[in-house]
Amino acid sequence: MKKFTKNFIKNSLRRIFLYRACLYRLKMMGIERVFSYTLAEEAGVNADQVRKDFSEFNIKGNKRGGYKINDLLDKIEAIFHKNKEHNIVLIGMGNLGLALSKYSRFMQRNMNIVASFDIDPYKQKARFEIPVYGMDRLKEIIHRFKVKVAIIAVPEISAQEVCDELVRFGIRGIVNFAPVLLKTPGNVIVNNVNLCDELESVIYYVQSQLKTEGLKNIELLYRGTK
Amino acid sequence: MKKFTKNFIKNSLRRIFLYRACLYRLKMMGIERVFSYTLAEEAGVNADQVRKDFSEFNIKGNKRGGYKINDLLDKIEAIFHKNKEHNIVLIGMGNLGLALSKYSRFMQRNMNIVASFDIDPYKQKARFEIPVYGMDRLKEIIHRFKVKVAIIAVPEISAQEVCDELVRFGIRGIVNFAPVLLKTPGNVIVNNVNLCDELESVIYYVQSQLKTEGLKNIELLYRGTK
Repeated sequence: MKKFTKNFIKNSLRRIFLYRACLYRLKMMGIERVFSYTLAEEAGVNADQVRKDFSEFNIKGNKRGGYKINDLLDKIEAIFHKNKEHNIVLIGMGNLGLALSKYSRFMQRNMNIVASFDIDPYKQKARFEIPVYGMDRLKEIIHRFKVKVAIIAVPEISAQEVCDELVRFGIRGIVNFAPVLLKTPGNVIVNNVNLCDELESVIYYVQSQLKTEGLKNIELLYRGTK
Repeated sequence: MKKFTKNFIKNSLRRIFLYRACLYRLKMMGIERVFSYTLAEEAGVNADQVRKDFSEFNIKGNKRGGYKINDLLDKIEAIFHKNKEHNIVLIGMGNLGLALSKYSRFMQRNMNIVASFDIDPYKQKARFEIPVYGMDRLKEIIHRFKVKVAIIAVPEISAQEVCDELVRFGIRGIVNFAPVLLKTPGNVIVNNVNLCDELESVIYYVQSQLKTEGLKNIELLYRGTK
């Protein structure tokens, strides 16, 4: 059955990413071992949470004297099959698609965009080394490179149609940058990255903080006049 | 005190965004009223969750006969000060920065990038209408336009330095696309959007699913030979 997919990424997985970033940072500072409470403090969670998350992802370590940072990083990277290369297709070569196709960190982390697709494949062709094809070659390329994951960076209006095609050709996971909820079969994972929502949520928190501070100032003023 | 900031966005706020997207979709389909259980189903949560989230954000509605979709949308948009314009600065005009500066939906949602900044302000100048300044004009522009929120799209190596400057000039909220954890004072909010993490998490789920399916197939084969 087709259903709307919510942003499915578990918080524990998000925290594992966070721990990884903290560990890389500590490592860069020349630190070799870390206690769970130190890592917890760096990540802004509590130590129980760190231990619980590690146990969920089966990350074990010698707790006496702290975890070895290199060991932890190896174990975390192993979860994500770091050393295995993953082939990805990118649909939509507008401004955002172009930026994603040039995002060198994907490649550094073994995520390999094998080809990009656009209804107008000549749009960006001259300017970049990743091949840009018309949508008619989508099936062929997905099968040839055994691609299971796709990035959608097309306009809102064509996102569902593109998504349906991807699913038909065997894609099982999608990072969707189009600001629309996609309908997919239950065995296809969609991660919605909505740039407006990310910005809007920051504005929301800043506005709330400024409002609270404003109220406090008024309160102080009022106290001053008593 | 400066501290690392985790991705602070509350799940309830993320769900409010999700409900909003579902409501716009239902509205587009010509539907006028919705029950919380219908909305819940669309969003992939349960009805209690919807009611709890609405109550947290003080969204009330007549439950008999369902909520009016337009009413709900007005109330949700009011939370985000939809009708108020928010000025934003963008730092870093590489590929990603350029794509963000051209992202028309920000403007449609009253988020107005007043200027962008780069160590090489001539890089993109000829190509776009948002002014691109050198970093020496950051303070002036932030003050002139009363900017409180910034987007960081600079390389990893200069992100913390840029962040420190922004904070010094009064910025209170940051959407950070650099793949690094920023240190900020407690009253400055950072929302980290890590493109690699978003892609990697989808790969992780797809790999896990394929592995489970593989094991099931082996099991079926084994049963077949018994």
